[in-house]
Amino acid sequence: MVCLPFGCASTKSRMRWWARSAALFATIILLLFSLSFWNRCGGEPGPPSTAAPADSSTKRRQSQLNRDTEGNDLTDLRCDINEEYSIDCKKSGKEVYIPFKFIKKYFEVYGQLSEQHGQPVFHWSHSYGQLFPPEEPYRPDGQFMYFATYNVEKRDRVKCISGPEGVPVTTQWRPSGFFYVIQIAQFGLSHYSRNLTEPPPNYYELLPSRNGASSGATFSWVRDSELNEDVAEFSPANPVTIPVDRSGKSLLMLELQVSSNATVWADLQFRDTALGRSVRVHYVCSDLMIAAQGSDVFVGLGSSWSGYKLFIRDLTVDALKGLGGRGRNAPKLTAQRLRVVRLGVSGGGRLRQLRLASSAHAGQTVQAADWLLRHQTAAGAWTVPVERRLNNHMVLAPDWSSAMAQGQAMSLLTRVYRATGDRRYLDAARRAAAPFNKDSADGGVRTMFQDKYVWYEEYPTVPASMVLNGFIYSLMGLYDLWRTDPDPAGGGAEAGRLYTAGVSSLRALLPLYDTGSGTLYDLRHVTCHVAPNLARWDYHVTHVNQLLVLATMEPNVTQFSTTADRWAEYMSGHRAPHN
Amino acid sequence: MVCLPFGCASTKSRMRWWARSAALFATIILLLFSLSFWNRCGGEPGPPSTAAPADSSTKRRQSQLNRDTEGNDLTDLRCDINEEYSIDCKKSGKEVYIPFKFIKKYFEVYGQLSEQHGQPVFHWSHSYGQLFPPEEPYRPDGQFMYFATYNVEKRDRVKCISGPEGVPVTTQWRPSGFFYVIQIAQFGLSHYSRNLTEPPPNYYELLPSRNGASSGATFSWVRDSELNEDVAEFSPANPVTIPVDRSGKSLLMLELQVSSNATVWADLQFRDTALGRSVRVHYVCSDLMIAAQGSDVFVGLGSSWSGYKLFIRDLTVDALKGLGGRGRNAPKLTAQRLRVVRLGVSGGGRLRQLRLASSAHAGQTVQAADWLLRHQTAAGAWTVPVERRLNNHMVLAPDWSSAMAQGQAMSLLTRVYRATGDRRYLDAARRAAAPFNKDSADGGVRTMFQDKYVWYEEYPTVPASMVLNGFIYSLMGLYDLWRTDPDPAGGGAEAGRLYTAGVSSLRALLPLYDTGSGTLYDLRHVTCHVAPNLARWDYHVTHVNQLLVLATMEPNVTQFSTTADRWAEYMSGHRAPHN
Repeated sequence: MVCLPFGCASTKSRMRWWARSAALFATIILLLFSLSFWNRCGGEPGPPSTAAPADSSTKRRQSQLNRDTEGNDLTDLRCDINEEYSIDCKKSGKEVYIPFKFIKKYFEVYGQLSEQHGQPVFHWSHSYGQLFPPEEPYRPDGQFMYFATYNVEKRDRVKCISGPEGVPVTTQWRPSGFFYVIQIAQFGLSHYSRNLTEPPPNYYELLPSRNGASSGATFSWVRDSELNEDVAEFSPANPVTIPVDRSGKSLLMLELQVSSNATVWADLQFRDTALGRSVRVHYVCSDLMIAAQGSDVFVGLGSSWSGYKLFIRDLTVDALKGLGGRGRNAPKLTAQRLRVVRLGVSGGGRLRQLRLASSAHAGQTVQAADWLLRHQTAAGAWTVPVERRLNNHMVLAPDWSSAMAQGQAMSLLTRVYRATGDRRYLDAARRAAAPFNKDSADGGVRTMFQDKYVWYEEYPTVPASMVLNGFIYSLMGLYDLWRTDPDPAGGGAEAGRLYTAGVSSLRALLPLYDTGSGTLYDLRHVTCHVAPNLARWDYHVTHVNQLLVLATMEPNVTQFSTTADRWAEYMSGHRAPHN
Repeated sequence: MVCLPFGCASTKSRMRWWARSAALFATIILLLFSLSFWNRCGGEPGPPSTAAPADSSTKRRQSQLNRDTEGNDLTDLRCDINEEYSIDCKKSGKEVYIPFKFIKKYFEVYGQLSEQHGQPVFHWSHSYGQLFPPEEPYRPDGQFMYFATYNVEKRDRVKCISGPEGVPVTTQWRPSGFFYVIQIAQFGLSHYSRNLTEPPPNYYELLPSRNGASSGATFSWVRDSELNEDVAEFSPANPVTIPVDRSGKSLLMLELQVSSNATVWADLQFRDTALGRSVRVHYVCSDLMIAAQGSDVFVGLGSSWSGYKLFIRDLTVDALKGLGGRGRNAPKLTAQRLRVVRLGVSGGGRLRQLRLASSAHAGQTVQAADWLLRHQTAAGAWTVPVERRLNNHMVLAPDWSSAMAQGQAMSLLTRVYRATGDRRYLDAARRAAAPFNKDSADGGVRTMFQDKYVWYEEYPTVPASMVLNGFIYSLMGLYDLWRTDPDPAGGGAEAGRLYTAGVSSLRALLPLYDTGSGTLYDLRHVTCHVAPNLARWDYHVTHVNQLLVLATMEPNVTQFSTTADRWAEYMSGHRAPHN
C-alpha cells in the first residue's frame, strides 16, 4: 500500500494516469509520502471506530472526531455556486467540504456508503457500466461479443415472449408491443452465445414412451400417419395431469398438434420471493398475447396452426411477464427459485414432445433466426412498424429499416447457418446486405458524411444521425457474412467490400465522437446544428467494448485499441489534456 | 430570493438550465421549498457568526456547530475514489462531505473563501474568463472586439517594446526574444481600440518654444534647413536637465536626430509599490534591447538612423520590463503611481518634439502598422522566425506564415488606412490575402478538411491542425479588407470570396469543436488520431466572444449566436444533455 497526496492507494488499484511522463516524479513523491503517512496508511484504513474498545488512546481520538488534524472545528459555510445559487457546506480551518449530494447532481458522479472491516467507507464512482475485454479474437462462429451476459427476455421493455413466434415482443416506442428486429436478433445472439458458454442442458421427460411406465399420465398412444411414429393423444374427455415436483428446470419444450382448443398448463412454486405464491401458467390456443388473472397467467400460442409445432417456453419468464411487475416492483422469479409441481393438458390434441429442460439456448437461437426468415422483406430488410423520432428534425416514419438490424441479423443468421448447414439462413444473410447499397432517402440504410465517408445508419434519418454503436454492430454483421459465405463471388465479397469501406469511415470519423471526457452517441450536432448528444455511460461502455472487439478483428489498426484505452480511462474521470 | 433544492438563489442569479422543459415542474418544487425554507433563506444567508453577540440563542446555535441540522456528529470517513486511491472525507448522518481541494483537482473547478456581511462565504467557479458581449454590431472601422481591454505590452511574455521598432518583442518560444507578428498586430489593434474608447490624451510639453520661457532647459535653438523649422539642439558640451515633477503622464514622445551618441533619460518615482524606489530610464543610441543595472534601466533606440525619428516610450512599461520582474514578483508599476521628476539629454543631437502624454494610442497604432509595412514578404506574408511544434507530428520549421497573423494584420492595416487615408496600408492588406490561396504544404495558410471545406490555418501544419480561434481571427481580417477596399474589382472582392467560403466552412465544422461541456482548441484528434486537445477556459471564452462578434457580422446565421449561448452555459457547468 502506498500513499498519494490525497490518501492511500492499494497495490491492486489501477493507477492509470494520463501524464505517464510524470511517473518518475510521482514515484519520488510517493516514496516521501509513504514514509510520513506510514502510521496512517500502514494499519487499518479510515478513522477509528466509535464501536471499538474504549482504551485511552481510542477515547482521545474519539474526542477529536469533530476536529480536523490541525484541531480546527468544523463549521457551517455557505457556498455560492457560479453566482447562480447557494448550498450549505462545511469548513474546517482553511479546508472547505462540499456535500456529495450536490457533487453527485452537479457532475453526475456516483457514490455509495458501505462498511469495510467495521469502518464506514464511501465508494466514489465516476461512471457505471462494465468493460468486457475480449478473451480471444473475434470469431464469426464464436460467441457474439459479451452477449452471453445478456438476458434479453428479462428486460423491462420486453412485454413477453410471443407464443406463436417464440421471440420477444417489445414495448419500446409502443406500449401495446411489437416485434423489434434488433431485440429479436439480440435475443438470438444472446442464446447462441450462452449455448457456447453454459453447460449443456439436461432434461426431465414428461411424456412416457409408449412402453414405459406412466407416472399417472393417461395419454392414449396413437400412430401419426404423416410422421409414421407414435404420438401421445389427449381429448376433451381425457384431460391429463402429470405430477412433477422438479426444480432447476424452467424451460418447457412441447411439440404440439391441436385438434380442438387444447391447453397445456403448469403449476409453479417460487421459493424465497416476496410473492411466495403458486402460479399456474396456461398455454392456450388463442391470439391473446399474455394476460393474468390473480395468480393465473395465460399465454396464447396462436389460434390455429397445421401439423406439429415446437414451443419453447421459459416458465420463469412467462410467470414474470404475466404477473406484470416491472422495475423495482418486479417479483424476483428466477429458475433457481422455481419448482414445477404439476403439468396438465386439456382440450384435444397430440404431443410429440413434452419435457422440462435446464436450458434451451440452441432452440431459442433457431426460433429467433426463423423469425428473421419469415419476416424479411423482398428488399432484404426487416422493417420496424413504429415511428421513431430522434428529435424534431430527425423522424423515421413507420416501417423503417436499420443498418444495425441488418447487421445483427447477419451475425445471427451466419452463425445459425454455420451450426445447421441450412442454406436458407445464409441466403437471408446475403439478401440482408442489399439495403447497405441504398441511401437512407431511398429506403436504404446508407448515408455519406460530407460526401466522402460512407456510413451505415442505425436510424436512417435525413439529415443523417450517424449513431456510433449501431454502425459498429452493422460492421460486425458484414464481417460475419464476409467470413462465412463460402462463395467468394457471392454475397461474401460484397459484404467484405461494404465492411472495408465502413472500417475506413470509422477510422476517419471515430475522433468526432471523442469529447475528451466521454463520447457522443451520434453526430446530430454536426448534421443538424443542435446541441451534441452525449452518450450516457452505458452507451459509452458499449463503444469501448465494441472497439476492443474491433481491435481483434483489425489487429493492424492500432487506433481502435488506443482509442478504446483512452475512452476506458474517461470512465475513471481521466480526461484528455487541455492546452 | 427563492430556494432551490440545494439552497438559495438571488433573483439576479442567472438560472439558466438546459432542461427548459422542466421549468413548470421546477416552479412547483421551488414554491414548495420557498415555503419550508423561508426561515433559512429569508434572513441573513449562511451560518451564525461565531463573533456575534453571545445571547442565549446564539450560544445554543454555537454549541451545534459540529452537528448538522439533524443533530448528527461530523465524523471522519475514508472515501475510495474509483478504486484507484483514497481521500479523507467527512460524514454527517447520511450525508458525505468531500474536501474541495480534491474536487478542485479532480474536476478542475475553482473556489475562493471570502467574507460577506461578516460571514464566511465560499465562491465556487466552474471556469474563469470574461465574456464580452458586443455592445454594437462589428464595424471594420470600430474598435476590434474587446481588444480595448488588452494591454499587450504588460504581458509576461513581452520582453520589452523595441526601441528602433516601437513594437513588442516576445519571449514566447524563444527566450532571447523575437518579433511575433500576431503580438504586434494585437498591440496595434489594442491601441487602436483604446484610442476610440479612452479620453483623448493631454500633454506636458518639455521643449519650450524658441520664444517661450524655458524651465531651466538650456537648449540651443537652431534652424533645420531640411525641415525649414527651428529645432532644439544639444551637444556633449551642453547636456540639458529639465525638472518636471508630473504624475499621470507616462508616455514620453520624442522626435530625435542624433549627431553623436545621444542619450535621453528620465527619473521616475513610483508611489505605493513594494519597490518604492526611484528608477532612471536611459534611452541610448545602441543596438542593446533592454538591460538594467541596479535601478538604472537602459533601452536601446538603435545605433544609427538618418533624419528625425519619432519614439513613443511608455515609461512604466520600460521600467517594468527593465527591472525584469515577472509574474508574482513583478513590481506593481502603473501610470497612476508614476511621477516623472526629471528629464535630461546628453551627447549630441537635435529634438523636434519632447513631451509627456497621458496616452499615445494613435501613435502606437501607427508604429505597429508601420512595422507590418516594413516586414511584409514579397509573397504578402509576415513570417515567424522560430520553430513551432504542436506535437511530434505537427511541426513548423522557422519562417512559417499564419492565417491568423495575416488576418490580424489586415484588421490593423485597414483601420489605419481608413484613419490616415494612406494607400500603403491598404496595399499591404491586399497583398496579405495572397497566402490564403496557397496550401500549407506550399508555404501558404490554406488547408482543405476532408477535401471539402477550406480552412485558414493559424499553424499551417501538415497534417492540418485547424485551430479554431486563429481561423475566426483570419475571417475577421478578410471581412475588414472586403468591407474597406474601395475598388470592387480589387483585393476586396477576393477577400469577400475568401471570407464567405470561410464562413461556410465554419458553419459546417463549428460543431466538431463542441464537447458538450467545453470546446476543443483544434482538430488534431481528427487529423492525427491523437487525444483531443481540449481548450482551456481562456481559449474557450475567446471562442464564445468571437462567435458573439461573428453573430453581429452574420445576423442571418443563428447558428453563431445559439452556439455562443450554449458554449457560454458550459462556463457555469451546464452540460449538453446526454441520452
